[in-house]
Amino acid sequence: MLKVPDHQVAGHQARNGQLGPLIDDSGRFYKPLQDDDRGSKEVAFYSSFSSNTRVPDHIRRLFPVFHGTQLLEASDGSGLRPHLVLEDVVSSRSHPSVMDIKIGSRTWYPEASEDYIQRCFKKDRETSSLSLGFRISGLQIYGNEESGFWKPERKLVQNLSAADVRVVLKKFVSSNLPVDPNSDPDCSFAASVYGGSTGILAQLLELKAWFEDQTMYHLNSCSVLLVYEKEKVLKGERSDAEVKLIDFAHVTEGKDIIDHNFLGGLCSLIKFISEILTSPDECTTKACLRDSERDKEILTSPDECTTKVCLQDSDKNTNYSENGTIEGM
Amino acid sequence: MLKVPDHQVAGHQARNGQLGPLIDDSGRFYKPLQDDDRGSKEVAFYSSFSSNTRVPDHIRRLFPVFHGTQLLEASDGSGLRPHLVLEDVVSSRSHPSVMDIKIGSRTWYPEASEDYIQRCFKKDRETSSLSLGFRISGLQIYGNEESGFWKPERKLVQNLSAADVRVVLKKFVSSNLPVDPNSDPDCSFAASVYGGSTGILAQLLELKAWFEDQTMYHLNSCSVLLVYEKEKVLKGERSDAEVKLIDFAHVTEGKDIIDHNFLGGLCSLIKFISEILTSPDECTTKACLRDSERDKEILTSPDECTTKVCLQDSDKNTNYSENGTIEGM
Repeated sequence: MLKVPDHQVAGHQARNGQLGPLIDDSGRFYKPLQDDDRGSKEVAFYSSFSSNTRVPDHIRRLFPVFHGTQLLEASDGSGLRPHLVLEDVVSSRSHPSVMDIKIGSRTWYPEASEDYIQRCFKKDRETSSLSLGFRISGLQIYGNEESGFWKPERKLVQNLSAADVRVVLKKFVSSNLPVDPNSDPDCSFAASVYGGSTGILAQLLELKAWFEDQTMYHLNSCSVLLVYEKEKVLKGERSDAEVKLIDFAHVTEGKDIIDHNFLGGLCSLIKFISEILTSPDECTTKACLRDSERDKEILTSPDECTTKVCLQDSDKNTNYSENGTIEGM
Repeated sequence: MLKVPDHQVAGHQARNGQLGPLIDDSGRFYKPLQDDDRGSKEVAFYSSFSSNTRVPDHIRRLFPVFHGTQLLEASDGSGLRPHLVLEDVVSSRSHPSVMDIKIGSRTWYPEASEDYIQRCFKKDRETSSLSLGFRISGLQIYGNEESGFWKPERKLVQNLSAADVRVVLKKFVSSNLPVDPNSDPDCSFAASVYGGSTGILAQLLELKAWFEDQTMYHLNSCSVLLVYEKEKVLKGERSDAEVKLIDFAHVTEGKDIIDHNFLGGLCSLIKFISEILTSPDECTTKACLRDSERDKEILTSPDECTTKVCLQDSDKNTNYSENGTIEGM
């Protein structure tokens, strides 16, 4: 029996008669192919990738398993439509905390149409993509049985400042309720979810090493999904934290060049997560997604977090002496 | 006695009454400050960087030494003008081979004016910056006493294909004459110039590790200079290959974010140089900077260099069967 996924945090959604992905009870995720060439491009990528013997196993694990395509009744009632058949990466979890992060400061690529390039260029500048090298496309964080999930509006999370992204990444691994703006994220799951030899950071570092070397694919506008189950961590069970790459409708051939755009953005995300692991108690803040100016002030005031350098225009207070050094610098 | 530098390969040049940098016999390089804010910005960067105790010594070595500023007669005869006083990085060399590589797929930055952004955006797309993550801004390769330097036109080298960049990076470390289009670059200096514990690759990797961590500066539109002396290598002396970062007129504060744009481009350059070290004999070609289509064919035909993946639009030859898999893939 096909149904609408409960834990989708970004992308088209199959609600209210819209076209979107479906899941079944066997752990499969059915993603409808768009009418334009995005759908066929994503099929082409999955076909190439799944049969590419040069992809090492530890990297293949970071991608959803591909089971071909299948004609299914589309969720918008428009009749039969081809769907990608993929692994449903959250199927084994009851209350998964999920974050969808679109990687790269640039989501367009040279081969795209000028119209597409201009639209992406505008959005990359309007969101945090340009400054951070990635943008959060959507997220849900499980609180508890009573509070359920905290699922902030997507528009709100796409353009977070560095300070706000830090807070969200902390909330993602904290035991206190994410929805409560007055509680400091305690980062109490940071070590078990982000850290450790199989945690999210270790998986991202494996991905990074591969991107430093592979010149086969450029994963334009692709996301990493971070997933884990809070209840498992609370029970002291081994964390099931997972990284999965998704959304390959704009993949292009690498042509002997590494994907420096994806790699740069990935390294930026890695730096954010590393910092939480090395200093989880610093830079905490009570406010999040409410008063970014106040956040910024609180977040950047501890010494550990400031990296103040002075690069002000020195024109106004600089005098050049004829004998050499600058006065007034 | 101030004079025009002999070995400048990019940037404004002090010839024919133009404004440009000067050198003296003491190993100093005098760079005139532009009238707009570029000059003062570069002074601000050097001042900040030279007094920044958080920059480790092994990284500081990769930047020219800063000796303040000085008022000097400008090379264009316009009178006294403040100049940056820097280390002349080629002063101790008689016939340096030099390559200036502007790092980053994006040379603009959010704080710049819209006009500047649009001009850079256009140039990044027209040159190899966007595709490769860097562009060669200029180079000179020493052949021998008779042939002198090979110094291709700057416009020609800014938009090289991946295959052509590979050839140029090989010519840079080859004993045969760079100007001869019919001789395969033999890469006979690759191990001593690019390789080794103090070679160019090792220096670039140190820089990379720093950029993965530092969030103080974003080096927009900055170049790495690769320099070495062929004669030293020929004599079997220890290679004096050096990496120096230059051009800081567009540096901005990092604001707790790594410079993912510089880092991505740097990783792309590192990949090119690593490949030459691991397989210098493969992918050689006779043609360079002449017939890029032919180059591409020759360069990509050996198995070691191809990374063919099939990402063609599969629309036209794909039939979707109702029972599942795609036919015709």
